[in-house]
Amino acid sequence: MAKRDNEGPDHCGTGRCRLFVDAPLALDAAYEPDKNQSHYLIHVMRLKVGESVLLFNGIDGEWRAGVSLLGKKSLTLSVVEHTRPHHPLPDIWLLFAPIKRSRLDYMVQKAAEMGAGKVMPVITRRTMVSRVNEDRLSANLVEAAEQCGLVSVPTLEPTLKLDVVLDRWAEMAPGRRIIFCDESAEPGSALESLQALKDANEPLAVLIGPEGGFDPSERERLLRRDDTIALSLGPRIMRADTAAVAALSVVQLVLGDWRKS
Amino acid sequence: MAKRDNEGPDHCGTGRCRLFVDAPLALDAAYEPDKNQSHYLIHVMRLKVGESVLLFNGIDGEWRAGVSLLGKKSLTLSVVEHTRPHHPLPDIWLLFAPIKRSRLDYMVQKAAEMGAGKVMPVITRRTMVSRVNEDRLSANLVEAAEQCGLVSVPTLEPTLKLDVVLDRWAEMAPGRRIIFCDESAEPGSALESLQALKDANEPLAVLIGPEGGFDPSERERLLRRDDTIALSLGPRIMRADTAAVAALSVVQLVLGDWRKS
Repeated sequence: MAKRDNEGPDHCGTGRCRLFVDAPLALDAAYEPDKNQSHYLIHVMRLKVGESVLLFNGIDGEWRAGVSLLGKKSLTLSVVEHTRPHHPLPDIWLLFAPIKRSRLDYMVQKAAEMGAGKVMPVITRRTMVSRVNEDRLSANLVEAAEQCGLVSVPTLEPTLKLDVVLDRWAEMAPGRRIIFCDESAEPGSALESLQALKDANEPLAVLIGPEGGFDPSERERLLRRDDTIALSLGPRIMRADTAAVAALSVVQLVLGDWRKS
Repeated sequence: MAKRDNEGPDHCGTGRCRLFVDAPLALDAAYEPDKNQSHYLIHVMRLKVGESVLLFNGIDGEWRAGVSLLGKKSLTLSVVEHTRPHHPLPDIWLLFAPIKRSRLDYMVQKAAEMGAGKVMPVITRRTMVSRVNEDRLSANLVEAAEQCGLVSVPTLEPTLKLDVVLDRWAEMAPGRRIIFCDESAEPGSALESLQALKDANEPLAVLIGPEGGFDPSERERLLRRDDTIALSLGPRIMRADTAAVAALSVVQLVLGDWRKS
């Protein structure tokens, strides 16, 4: 379970307490939440015996589990009902240049809400952040999945340099198209650019550069490849966290699971 | 000038210090920044005599102004060059149910980045926030406009109840279509719904409900009107601030200034 923000638990309109657990889930299974989860359930959510929470593990779908034993510091949950089947996240990756801390939290939370299946920090030439706290990113992905009703958590990949990612792309992600958000791309063609990818039905990755954009040599390298496409996000400059949501929105709209499958 | 976040000034990749000013701008005009702006320029940005900043007032475009007089607590800027013409924001309004403080800051900042011309808090039945700090919202709009290179600041409208807005819509916003983001709308039709509005070329408003969604009676009232359209933002539940960015992105893509005009 992820840390909660200062403003208390908030389940994104689901009104339900949901926990990601690293354990198999099936009818009658018992689950003992870890220390952080137990604190949250007992002291923040103030669960009583007989009350229930929703559990998911990214494999077995979502299950309702009731409090069967309750102590001061620990509790046992018993799985009573299968509430939703497993549903994989869309096969869209988000590659992003890490930004400063609070906005990075937002960016990865929003990547989960927007249905990115995998997130990967990439260090570009103009990236100002050199160390990425991957535990913190994971916690943010779990928190967003819990709060926004997902039954899977996006996978976090290790941080790599953009040059290394591009060198290895054919083996890391065979056949996967990189949609890179390019402040220098001709505005006005975004919808057409995305629609042109419809028939190919390729797996996709969205790449967001740092604030300050890509270095000209990076941009040139990206443009030269035949597995990339430059996408203009309109005439205004956006912060990187905004650009990530905007790019995932338009990709989901035209090529992802916002359209009829 | 808006308050700065804890992480220091950040100009969204523009690399330039920009200030919104409430004064006419023209060649050779002198401008004396107010107390907050002066503190920021002298002590945070550490401007020296001869260095320059960019100024805009939402009317006269963007101008470069150099420091001509510098004291410990005040300074004078002299306008030396017209750098960009005025450019109005797209005629797209954002109506939103206010949410908790830090996410509300984000929502309005992002509304500016996404090019909403006007933002209007609306109180719906399930809105959990009853008081809106309009000064804070204004400051956030100004800050986003300064940081993201806009030459206009979105207009903030007074907070109204949704029922009142709908009662008065025909006079408040004649001929303006309300695109309301509806968690109950059939997923899969968002692109087609937006494309169907292309030819009408109407002025637009995007309406984002609270976390928890619209009340069934509100939804019914919205659906019954002939100046509304329900938009599905895909199969996942999003936080309201994410939904605002997502909705503005897809509207800008298909109907706004991300397409060729």
